Amino acid sequence: MKYQKGEFRYEGKAKRIFEVVGSPDLLWMEFKDSLTAFNAQKKGSFSNKGVINKQIAVLIFRYLSSRGIKSHWVADVSEREWICQRLTIIPLEVVVRNWLAGSTAKKFGIEEGTALKAPLVEFYYKKDELNDPFVSDDQALVIGAAQDQAQLNALKKQALAVNEALVHFFSKMGIRLIDFKIEFGVSERGEVILGDEITPDSCRLWDLATNEKLDKDRFRRDLGRVEESYQEVLKRITSTWESQL
Amino acid sequence: MKYQKGEFRYEGKAKRIFEVVGSPDLLWMEFKDSLTAFNAQKKGSFSNKGVINKQIAVLIFRYLSSRGIKSHWVADVSEREWICQRLTIIPLEVVVRNWLAGSTAKKFGIEEGTALKAPLVEFYYKKDELNDPFVSDDQALVIGAAQDQAQLNALKKQALAVNEALVHFFSKMGIRLIDFKIEFGVSERGEVILGDEITPDSCRLWDLATNEKLDKDRFRRDLGRVEESYQEVLKRITSTWESQL
Repeated sequence: MKYQKGEFRYEGKAKRIFEVVGSPDLLWMEFKDSLTAFNAQKKGSFSNKGVINKQIAVLIFRYLSSRGIKSHWVADVSEREWICQRLTIIPLEVVVRNWLAGSTAKKFGIEEGTALKAPLVEFYYKKDELNDPFVSDDQALVIGAAQDQAQLNALKKQALAVNEALVHFFSKMGIRLIDFKIEFGVSERGEVILGDEITPDSCRLWDLATNEKLDKDRFRRDLGRVEESYQEVLKRITSTWESQL
Repeated sequence: MKYQKGEFRYEGKAKRIFEVVGSPDLLWMEFKDSLTAFNAQKKGSFSNKGVINKQIAVLIFRYLSSRGIKSHWVADVSEREWICQRLTIIPLEVVVRNWLAGSTAKKFGIEEGTALKAPLVEFYYKKDELNDPFVSDDQALVIGAAQDQAQLNALKKQALAVNEALVHFFSKMGIRLIDFKIEFGVSERGEVILGDEITPDSCRLWDLATNEKLDKDRFRRDLGRVEESYQEVLKRITSTWESQL
């Protein structure tokens, strides 16, 4: 095998991270079967969730790459493991919303599923012990979460490019992209690159015809059919992949 | 008397508003003795609080006017009443912070009283039933709280000018301006003008030497000596007024 699994680095809510022997610029990432919500206060899992999510994430990163958007994904090594670039993560969750749902809909007392005239980009400070608070640009700079306003502007621009690509991608398979969360990091060469993953854990995906939820809200809100929905997303992506993308 | 009190318009947490007979562009504002905190979940009052606050607000608006910053204040009519311009209020509370305290310090787990390298401007959406949520520029535009980004930029610029003037003003009387909240409105002529009030209800004021709090936090946090602190602020302003400002 081209890559050799190195030392264990740390375990997150949905992934385990290892070194790659002889490649300090790479990481070995394993997708776990666990599901968490509300800052890990709610926990669950289903078998093969990590396998499904890794496949979805790879297909999405490959699609984005075909549209000129780079990610940290480098190569697959097993059904639930991949090799990715080691990035210095920018500690901001970047959320893009096309329709209002979840915390922002609640915060403004606006009905879930209300369309926005233009996509809304939001930053949340990645800090579990503070419950990932929502921040303005100025707050992000005060707490040192980003280097400068230019970096924040670059994140917004890249997030909107990802959104444009993904709206198109999901619409081809009868899915409405309500919102999603992404993370960026800086590579050894100083490039800002898409990191983490894009999966039903980090997106709100509604069936275009029925508005049925096909994402982690099924787990968050105890709607049932969690595993089936993740599988449905993967099935739609793979069956659309060759024919239309 | 030049002005004649007209019909009652509405009652807020700390003020009553009336029309001014024959002057549709003016309002008659009465400062109440009530004190509220935590979105009016905590209520109190002390006698003459409205009288003290109105005097403080007038002196501050007069000082700002001398520095070229316009407010809605027009004239005094009694010890707790004034005439002001009728503005269409922009539904954003504009907060400027020089030192971190209160909700933002808590949100970031930063110790109260930590100095900021530069003043931080924040917007909160004025909507009691939503608990005045913190908003980013983009959110303020999505909910229609401001007209456009240019208006938000103008608010920030004016807020920073008010801050610069007030930091100087309070430092002359041995007071550190930790943070404050202001509101703006649009006049009949389309000018964006400082509205509402600037008083110990809406500022955090700490004694420069002792860090003793001289503001509404004494009420919010049950520190006692609320009335004495408001009186102390008024005393320092009036005694500094002629000699140094």
